[in-house]
Amino acid sequence: MSRRQRQALDALLRSVPRSETPLTPAEQRTSFAAAMTRPAPESVTVRRTVLGGRPALELEPAGAADRGRLLYLHGGGYVIGSPDTHTGLAGELAARAGLRTTSVDYRLAPEHPFPAAVDDGLAAYRDLLTAGVDPREIVVAGDSAGGGLSIATLLAAREAGLPQPAAAVVFSPWVDLTLSGASMRTKEAADPIFTQADVRAYADLYVGAGDRSHPLASPVFADLSGLPPLLVQVGANEVLLDDAVRLAARAGAADVETTLEIGPGLPHVYQTHHGRLDEADTALDRAAHFLTAHLNAPLEADLNPAPPHPAAI
Amino acid sequence: MSRRQRQALDALLRSVPRSETPLTPAEQRTSFAAAMTRPAPESVTVRRTVLGGRPALELEPAGAADRGRLLYLHGGGYVIGSPDTHTGLAGELAARAGLRTTSVDYRLAPEHPFPAAVDDGLAAYRDLLTAGVDPREIVVAGDSAGGGLSIATLLAAREAGLPQPAAAVVFSPWVDLTLSGASMRTKEAADPIFTQADVRAYADLYVGAGDRSHPLASPVFADLSGLPPLLVQVGANEVLLDDAVRLAARAGAADVETTLEIGPGLPHVYQTHHGRLDEADTALDRAAHFLTAHLNAPLEADLNPAPPHPAAI
Repeated sequence: MSRRQRQALDALLRSVPRSETPLTPAEQRTSFAAAMTRPAPESVTVRRTVLGGRPALELEPAGAADRGRLLYLHGGGYVIGSPDTHTGLAGELAARAGLRTTSVDYRLAPEHPFPAAVDDGLAAYRDLLTAGVDPREIVVAGDSAGGGLSIATLLAAREAGLPQPAAAVVFSPWVDLTLSGASMRTKEAADPIFTQADVRAYADLYVGAGDRSHPLASPVFADLSGLPPLLVQVGANEVLLDDAVRLAARAGAADVETTLEIGPGLPHVYQTHHGRLDEADTALDRAAHFLTAHLNAPLEADLNPAPPHPAAI
Repeated sequence: MSRRQRQALDALLRSVPRSETPLTPAEQRTSFAAAMTRPAPESVTVRRTVLGGRPALELEPAGAADRGRLLYLHGGGYVIGSPDTHTGLAGELAARAGLRTTSVDYRLAPEHPFPAAVDDGLAAYRDLLTAGVDPREIVVAGDSAGGGLSIATLLAAREAGLPQPAAAVVFSPWVDLTLSGASMRTKEAADPIFTQADVRAYADLYVGAGDRSHPLASPVFADLSGLPPLLVQVGANEVLLDDAVRLAARAGAADVETTLEIGPGLPHVYQTHHGRLDEADTALDRAAHFLTAHLNAPLEADLNPAPPHPAAI
């Protein structure tokens, strides 16, 4: 599609100077906010709100349907990022899907290690249900650590006996804090953003001496049965490629309706480059379509189709 | 979507009596033809033709565009099946994509073991090019062994120095004749059609004492780089699930634009149940859209987009 765009983006990402000494979480947050933050589309109204006891941003596209809600969980290794850094990305998805969206400022490590983020994700989802929103009208999305947190939140909801939402979309999800995917090594040179050491540093801050294979920290090791239809998008130039592949493989094997999209030449959470990378825009369009197509799908029990015709099998 | 349809289909497939003694290939072909054959949609004109020196069926949907050609390779374990048994499936895909389609009667084992089928697939593709069809206007599709053969044909074309077509779609592709996928065991009870032994019997007839991991017999072990955009659809109730998953994972890692769809509760090549299983119809629609969306895409060199904007990264 846009090889020149991809190559220019790759070069640009590689040109970012890397600090000689490790940055503190506070320094990382400042740097990430400066690099990542983009405004929501003009058609989206942004308001501060609270959900599940945490600050949040509400992103309301003009003409959004009364029905349908998107819960968004931002990325940043469970250590950095916020709804403000992800206003552009979440706002683009909200606008394209036409969905009122709440992006949650879940607690971050190292101040608040695992499972604080999962507790906050679950509390946010529970609050939507408590407010009377039909789970068939809720969809969930997230990127990177927020993609892993999206899956963990669905698992926590299942364990809490809550109904599942209608669908989930995850961009470059981080779902294996043990870093056991082969792409941690095979894609290290191709990844313009992360080394294996970068990813490990986030895991250290989030889980510390805890169990990194806990299913709510590393949902790739969880029983994924009962989850709603899932779309996973990932770039081929990512050390996290195999996180996405294994999540999709395990979800599908557990009878979750699963779609995996692997984009050649693309970096981590390439959807953030909407408006300047064709693949980002088309991926966001597909993600929005996936979410709305599954919203308020008829209950299986409502259907009464004819059985297949034996003679023609 | 259609749990009752899926359950009725599963029960029906399990009700097919299994022979006490192994059937001969001739008996299998007769039985498969009786069970599988469905007519093309009324809007599709079917003619006998020849492509790559082999008999073939041409399936021309009413109002098909002058441009765009679909090469279809039917399934049947490289031992059974023909363009006639797959007139319904190939015709449905042709009609939905609006593409003139040629379904090739490649040679079957055991009379013609590996690599006869690959030779015929390559000859058919080469004939389309020789006839002056632009490779950017050719798409390839196949199911089961025909899905594996589709990938093998693309690999053989690459090795022969031919240009790749615009896209490929494979339904439940069989791409590992060594049967090393975990789903060969984990999905044996869930699969209403095949046991591991059934699949091994086809491999015995196709490759015999040859190398079952040869990349043109088992493309999951091939270097897949350079292949065109690929859509893989598979059911979760298949011993061949992991063939599809690993093909998609390896293609994506090799920088092929890849989409994998895993459908819960669905059997092998569930697309054959179009018209009586909702998932079959929606999958065929997505497959048709994927093929036409990639037809005649602009060459990368024709594009001259602005590079990404550094300040906003």
